[in-house]
Amino acid sequence: MFDRDDLKGIIPPIATPLTPSEEVDVAGMRRLVDYVLDAGVHGLFVLGATGEFAYLRDRERVRAIETAVEAANGRVPVMAGISDAGTKQVIEHCLAARRAGADFVACMAPYYSTLRQPWIYEHFRAIACETGAPLLLYNVPPVATPIEPETIARLAEIENVVGMKDSGDFIHIQDVLFRTRGRDFRMLSGLEYHLVAALQIGARGGTPSPSNIWPQVYVEMYDKTISGKVEEAFALQERSNRFVDLLDAIPSWTSTVKAALHLMGICGPTVAAPAPSLSIEEADLLRAHLARYHLL
Amino acid sequence: MFDRDDLKGIIPPIATPLTPSEEVDVAGMRRLVDYVLDAGVHGLFVLGATGEFAYLRDRERVRAIETAVEAANGRVPVMAGISDAGTKQVIEHCLAARRAGADFVACMAPYYSTLRQPWIYEHFRAIACETGAPLLLYNVPPVATPIEPETIARLAEIENVVGMKDSGDFIHIQDVLFRTRGRDFRMLSGLEYHLVAALQIGARGGTPSPSNIWPQVYVEMYDKTISGKVEEAFALQERSNRFVDLLDAIPSWTSTVKAALHLMGICGPTVAAPAPSLSIEEADLLRAHLARYHLL
Amino acid sequence: MFDRDDLKGIIPPIATPLTPSEEVDVAGMRRLVDYVLDAGVHGLFVLGATGEFAYLRDRERVRAIETAVEAANGRVPVMAGISDAGTKQVIEHCLAARRAGADFVACMAPYYSTLRQPWIYEHFRAIACETGAPLLLYNVPPVATPIEPETIARLAEIENVVGMKDSGDFIHIQDVLFRTRGRDFRMLSGLEYHLVAALQIGARGGTPSPSNIWPQVYVEMYDKTISGKVEEAFALQERSNRFVDLLDAIPSWTSTVKAALHLMGICGPTVAAPAPSLSIEEADLLRAHLARYHLL
Amino acid sequence: MFDRDDLKGIIPPIATPLTPSEEVDVAGMRRLVDYVLDAGVHGLFVLGATGEFAYLRDRERVRAIETAVEAANGRVPVMAGISDAGTKQVIEHCLAARRAGADFVACMAPYYSTLRQPWIYEHFRAIACETGAPLLLYNVPPVATPIEPETIARLAEIENVVGMKDSGDFIHIQDVLFRTRGRDFRMLSGLEYHLVAALQIGARGGTPSPSNIWPQVYVEMYDKTISGKVEEAFALQERSNRFVDLLDAIPSWTSTVKAALHLMGICGPTVAAPAPSLSIEEADLLRAHLARYHLL
Repeated sequence: MFDRDDLKGIIPPIATPLTPSEEVDVAGMRRLVDYVLDAGVHGLFVLGATGEFAYLRDRERVRAIETAVEAANGRVPVMAGISDAGTKQVIEHCLAARRAGADFVACMAPYYSTLRQPWIYEHFRAIACETGAPLLLYNVPPVATPIEPETIARLAEIENVVGMKDSGDFIHIQDVLFRTRGRDFRMLSGLEYHLVAALQIGARGGTPSPSNIWPQVYVEMYDKTISGKVEEAFALQERSNRFVDLLDAIPSWTSTVKAALHLMGICGPTVAAPAPSLSIEEADLLRAHLARYHLL
Repeated sequence: MFDRDDLKGIIPPIATPLTPSEEVDVAGMRRLVDYVLDAGVHGLFVLGATGEFAYLRDRERVRAIETAVEAANGRVPVMAGISDAGTKQVIEHCLAARRAGADFVACMAPYYSTLRQPWIYEHFRAIACETGAPLLLYNVPPVATPIEPETIARLAEIENVVGMKDSGDFIHIQDVLFRTRGRDFRMLSGLEYHLVAALQIGARGGTPSPSNIWPQVYVEMYDKTISGKVEEAFALQERSNRFVDLLDAIPSWTSTVKAALHLMGICGPTVAAPAPSLSIEEADLLRAHLARYHLL
Repeated sequence: MFDRDDLKGIIPPIATPLTPSEEVDVAGMRRLVDYVLDAGVHGLFVLGATGEFAYLRDRERVRAIETAVEAANGRVPVMAGISDAGTKQVIEHCLAARRAGADFVACMAPYYSTLRQPWIYEHFRAIACETGAPLLLYNVPPVATPIEPETIARLAEIENVVGMKDSGDFIHIQDVLFRTRGRDFRMLSGLEYHLVAALQIGARGGTPSPSNIWPQVYVEMYDKTISGKVEEAFALQERSNRFVDLLDAIPSWTSTVKAALHLMGICGPTVAAPAPSLSIEEADLLRAHLARYHLL
Repeated sequence: MFDRDDLKGIIPPIATPLTPSEEVDVAGMRRLVDYVLDAGVHGLFVLGATGEFAYLRDRERVRAIETAVEAANGRVPVMAGISDAGTKQVIEHCLAARRAGADFVACMAPYYSTLRQPWIYEHFRAIACETGAPLLLYNVPPVATPIEPETIARLAEIENVVGMKDSGDFIHIQDVLFRTRGRDFRMLSGLEYHLVAALQIGARGGTPSPSNIWPQVYVEMYDKTISGKVEEAFALQERSNRFVDLLDAIPSWTSTVKAALHLMGICGPTVAAPAPSLSIEEADLLRAHLARYHLL
């Protein structure tokens, strides 16, 4: 139903609301999906790093995708994370994600070990070719070995490798865009701090993690950029960067996102262990930050 | 049947022989267990890093433990790796490992994310307390956040935290020994390069990965050290270190171990993807190294 | 004669041509200055990293600045590197550089040790206040501890801290620009790979090291960018980035720059030890690259 | 007068007492030399990292060596640091150090840049051969590129390369000892945390930086170790390691050493900028630590 032309705009890497026993909180996830869709986002990325994919048992992974798909209800495309340490595991996650209704799948380089580029190429090639799923590469150093632009350019020649989420630096994004020009390969910027600049050089959109909490500013930033109002876009970039600086000073990003969503009435604060709950002092600080930005 | 007093000597972190479709090769694992037990090793560590734990699907993890337990047949204790990214997952692996017959379990700090020491403490505390299993901490920087000696000393106060496998440096091992003196806490040296020195300051044994291939030299090194023949022990240390240097020059340690076991007639060379097979040139080089050390 | 408004455009961090005994080759440096000025560059940066400042004895540092100043002969401003490990040493270099005729001085954070931000602030404050020289901060991680944007913003309040050369990533440059907006603080991009994008968000110029060899492409890139021909500017960015990739594959950047200048007839190939000379194979490869880009 | 057989025992890398204007405090250095010699140390290492060599101007480097030589007055050998970024600079420092009376010189790999092993070999070879001075290699990662054991073994073949100070880890020290066995190459352990273990495997002595403050414990540790009282030696190792942990929690090691020497009445607290003075809170904490260990 959706194709690669729909990979654009703001695609929040949504948190996975959890019950106290770390099962998917279906009602919470529906509220989160509605919150970001009401703000005008253009897609959903479920089971990214913010979605705590690495901590969820297989059955919860599937439930998270199913819930997001049902909640999106065809309004926007749903991209599902399928990352794991081994190729076989990823292929199983990929098939499960497609059965659960994901429009696209996105995969990191294996994050447990340091890999050489030919092994990384072969990893993605096997996934793309054995599943046929519309695949996005997900570059996220230093969590996983960086995928070099030359490797990406070679992978972009495979029909169902439709694009990437690049959380590498600006020079990496620029180099991938240079090397894939003319191909039907969609770039999404993973880092929210340089979103406007990335859009200006050819990225089609971005997956800013803080858009779980403040989707409005990123949607407006995107709209301003593509309509040529660059100065206004950069003013929003600066404003949101300062907001993220405040939140980032609290240890454990996923815990902070969940605590914010809890304060905003969307879902409970549970994160998968070993990530910690916020302390009372941290939660008070977070509440003040959210209030200051009119998010409460 | 076995208790913490049995945590001593050479405990190979055995490879997990695999069929071409990446299922556990039961006959191969039995041959490997017999090979190292015939050489006189004092225990088995299944599903460590050399055992490719991170790449195996849950059912294969269980099968690997069951096979090792059956093959050991009560002759030596079996320690099983239960590492994963999240606390809940580890607890599930732990219960499964105990059901499969493991005498001890060993667990890394979560390897996907960078954690603060109190979160690491809580991770291990939860595993120890919710399962009651005889647990070894497994320190393996930089794969996982280092577990600081103070954290280890606090964890050593928990009854069923019986010891650790420390692949940190010599100063780390020494500091843990200083801080746990008087406790019933068993230290195993993870790094084979300083095994003799670690034994001299109080380690009870070691888990040298190359003992999959050359268990004899490590058993002899251990025997010489504990019987006070230190000069002979260091001569073996030097000799085996040079051997490991040669193998280590080939990329992908697990692939090299499997290829060596294949050349030695113990199991097939299959490693879990994305780890690569050795090239023909690398395999020829490996064969020459093994021949030079009389292992073929 | 020159003031901060002249800090703009392409300012090559020129190599320091050396005689075989590692003294400044005055005639060679004059030829290099003429070569880049003929190509239209807007300033000179002498004794940066490419200028091998760290390897030169004090008397050669002074001679390099004097030679560049004489050769420039008032046509463009001359900025001189004054970096060293200690504050006192830097102040001596600064006074010597001003006596030698430098219009501006530029200084790294001390590169021998890891410093906290308040110590870095105090280092630069002391240099600025005790010398009164027009000072540029020089951010060059990981060679030196990164200077954080907050520290830079505080330093920018000092009258004679006129700007910076930022070899940090794009997000760092953007953040400094956000935080110094409204101040008379001039940003020069240190990294040549993202020069166009840096100019687009407010950098006044750049100090691309490869402009020693190929100044023309950077001058044209700058002209296209400031005259709004962005697509043409990015085409030049891509072309020059590929050129730099080729040269960068040869170990030791300063040796490669000197060898290129030697092949181009500008100066001898001597680099200060312990940097090595290029091997014959590397020199042949370099010659082929230069020929392919019509630089011979 | 002294030869390589005198390279043994505890050789403090002495601080360089400074006047408020960062010139060598001659009287202070004499008091420091007397303090450590009275405690029984076996040599002096002037202008090491603790001696703030990198921050001192050339004339102060020479004065520091002259002062130490005069103060030692032939009682123990004096080793002088000659490290710098470039080979030519080091050779000048070396000749000056010998003129100033140093018995031995010690040199790091160049610390400004990352070097390949053959360049490091050539750096040390040039220094040894062009000066003829009795040279110690000084391995100090990550401040400088690590000198690999193979490189050290090749350098040990040069007549006047008499030994090394190794601040690498235990495995590095052990490997150098393995590879230089049979040569007249003296190993000093740079890291105080594993001094006893290093002596046990063949190091001739050590250069513990905390022996500026507490020389007695290291002298006793050395004596116990070489007289076979290993258990007592390890008890002192543990006790001194805990002491160092306390001091190490205060930022800036050299500032802490100077502040301690000031509290002990030996010299002023001045460190070369940009290193900071201790805050009042830090100084109070330090005073308490010193009192607890009966050093005040």
